[in-house]
Amino acid sequence: MITKRLSELEDEDLRSLLSRDVGIQDVLPAVNEIIMEVGSKGDEALFKYTEKFEGAHLDDLRVTQEEIDLSYDLVDDRLLEALSSAADHIFYFHNEQKEHDLWMSEASPGVLVGQKVVPLDSVGAYVPGGRAAYPSSALMTVIPAKVADVPRIVVCTPPQKDGSINPLTLAAADMAGADEIYKLGGAQAIAAMALGTDSIERVDKIVGPGNVYVTAAKMLTRGSVEIDFPAGPSEVLILADRTADPGVIAADMIAQGEHDPKSISVFVSLDDLLASAVAEELNIQAPGAARSDIVSESLEHSAILLADDMDEALDFVNAFAPEHLEIITREPMNVLRSIRNAGSVFLGKFTPVAAGDYASGTNHVLPTSGYARIFSGLNVDHFTKKMTLQMITDEGLLGLEETITTLAEAEGLLAHAESVRRRLEPRE
Amino acid sequence: MITKRLSELEDEDLRSLLSRDVGIQDVLPAVNEIIMEVGSKGDEALFKYTEKFEGAHLDDLRVTQEEIDLSYDLVDDRLLEALSSAADHIFYFHNEQKEHDLWMSEASPGVLVGQKVVPLDSVGAYVPGGRAAYPSSALMTVIPAKVADVPRIVVCTPPQKDGSINPLTLAAADMAGADEIYKLGGAQAIAAMALGTDSIERVDKIVGPGNVYVTAAKMLTRGSVEIDFPAGPSEVLILADRTADPGVIAADMIAQGEHDPKSISVFVSLDDLLASAVAEELNIQAPGAARSDIVSESLEHSAILLADDMDEALDFVNAFAPEHLEIITREPMNVLRSIRNAGSVFLGKFTPVAAGDYASGTNHVLPTSGYARIFSGLNVDHFTKKMTLQMITDEGLLGLEETITTLAEAEGLLAHAESVRRRLEPRE
Repeated sequence: MITKRLSELEDEDLRSLLSRDVGIQDVLPAVNEIIMEVGSKGDEALFKYTEKFEGAHLDDLRVTQEEIDLSYDLVDDRLLEALSSAADHIFYFHNEQKEHDLWMSEASPGVLVGQKVVPLDSVGAYVPGGRAAYPSSALMTVIPAKVADVPRIVVCTPPQKDGSINPLTLAAADMAGADEIYKLGGAQAIAAMALGTDSIERVDKIVGPGNVYVTAAKMLTRGSVEIDFPAGPSEVLILADRTADPGVIAADMIAQGEHDPKSISVFVSLDDLLASAVAEELNIQAPGAARSDIVSESLEHSAILLADDMDEALDFVNAFAPEHLEIITREPMNVLRSIRNAGSVFLGKFTPVAAGDYASGTNHVLPTSGYARIFSGLNVDHFTKKMTLQMITDEGLLGLEETITTLAEAEGLLAHAESVRRRLEPRE
Repeated sequence: MITKRLSELEDEDLRSLLSRDVGIQDVLPAVNEIIMEVGSKGDEALFKYTEKFEGAHLDDLRVTQEEIDLSYDLVDDRLLEALSSAADHIFYFHNEQKEHDLWMSEASPGVLVGQKVVPLDSVGAYVPGGRAAYPSSALMTVIPAKVADVPRIVVCTPPQKDGSINPLTLAAADMAGADEIYKLGGAQAIAAMALGTDSIERVDKIVGPGNVYVTAAKMLTRGSVEIDFPAGPSEVLILADRTADPGVIAADMIAQGEHDPKSISVFVSLDDLLASAVAEELNIQAPGAARSDIVSESLEHSAILLADDMDEALDFVNAFAPEHLEIITREPMNVLRSIRNAGSVFLGKFTPVAAGDYASGTNHVLPTSGYARIFSGLNVDHFTKKMTLQMITDEGLLGLEETITTLAEAEGLLAHAESVRRRLEPRE
């Protein structure tokens, strides 16, 4: 744990905080081998790697309707209700986010310009699994595709050793609207969706979180298929002033830490006493956490940083570009105005990251490792493309004629000018 | 030129029409070498390659304010007016396309969810040049970035042999709002913007059209920088019924052909007589075209295809996914409803592709080679990222508590549940 004033951070500390590497370099050769083998041997390679990595011997990768129906029976009603309530919120948010399917607007007399938004034909959603179950990730990756009206939504998620998918994950994927579900994980799942095999038809785009192998496979197959963005260890940055409760901040850092030993929690404090109080709370709460080993490893490379003023704090936040940003200050909406780089922002003391992870309805598949500088979190746009439109009348074209022919001729494209003049000839 | 009924197309013809390769494979090794050298030697490599490829010896890559001012004096007023009129339309369209900067919406009582759209910090626009001048591409790549409020917009465009930039291109880049303009082209320009050198600070994203070397460099640097999409030879698909004028269709195919010998024009005819008439018109018009050599080479791998009915025609259009689609039928808006894959659509007989290239205001940087299945043309979204927001009240969190804690516990993330309960404790 780094505990320092921002102004006294050494270059090395700052670099290590700001340059969080996704860390795919080491696994690229192994992942490349898997992709090549899936490309050349198809299903045979998928069965082999599923046996090798998941310990599951399968004869068929596709989840059947019977298995899906059974999953609802296997899951407690209370859990199904929670899933359904989360799904409602996620549908609500992504419907609000969706753009108009088609609009047109008159740029000048007789010149209508517009845009039509069209869903992709097919997408693949990767849902992590295996030992743990991530039903929430099934909701988060499938629902925005459904809202975008993608006609073919494929889910790949690794099976348990007995060859089954965790029933809660399966129910979530089905509830969200997945069209095809496969028992397949890791780099081999990405390769199968990118290249296609006998069992799995290829898709146009692959989205969803995953470990370093999954991310490496997404980067390597990016020539044949589009992806959302690279995923690294999850992270939170909490920006708080003296109005915040130190116990809550520590609880949120611990919640972040329980994801993975590589998770990062950074607390930027506008108040020196609060910083000390959070450090104390961490010492009290962390040892009692359910996953205290993972949490303590995560906290080791986390940081408590003291800011001299809000400007210094905001510069650091924007440079860090956190996946999750909590703003627990007197007037969080005032602070939001200066935030340029963050995946998702949690405003005020009653808005924990856990709310966005499960229930507020925003997407929890977010850019990590500083990628929030460049990428948006998973959203409806990832599942659509926009085509532009124009419809021009004879008068409209007459109005544009001079502009088009002058520029076309300046660029040496005389036939472009001719294509306009020929249309207007009958009027001359 | 392929001239056939769609239903009689042989597999080989169909494959060659549908799988238009961007063709970067052959140049990857040479481009990779350039990128490596720019990475290791910086400016020294940029000067070397500019001398080698553009024949220009430079001591400074950055265009000065004096050179920009001079460009306006060098360009004819009529041309400046055309540029300015085109820029007005392009600003109009992209302003219409721009999303609300911030919205919030109440998903359930006390649960506000929303979105904030933020410009990228810096982008690089590649504008082709050298022998020819493409002022329109300067407008098309810079204006959407300007509309998105990107604070640092960099333009790279290759110099002429005398070391200057074509004044029309320079005036266009300045008029559009470029902040920095560099005399640099090809793979070395992409490498410099992606990696940074002493002269050119790196950017977050690179957009814009370019030849196969530029596209290869964009694909190879995609680990360090984000790009818009790969660019291949330009193409048009014209879908027309008997209401269309064959002379206009031929003129548009020729206009498409004059871009590049590799450009592709496909005419899908719903009427046999019209197809023959277009073929005749091509024979009449093509030999007289200003760039008849380029046009005739382009027409060689183009096609006139006869459709038995609209459904067959539409299936082919969506499979081809053209960069430009012209619909010249009795009711083009009816046809548009079934179009799923196209970069930009030109509706009706007074709407030539040339209008979108220069003046209607839509963007002419569009996905080619079938990429319209997956990618949108260049638009304001390319220059922004979206962060999601949530602000929850105590009552709102109480309403979500059961959903969050149930799902968090099902995923084994007990500290997530605890982070919610701790906030609500004082109420219990």
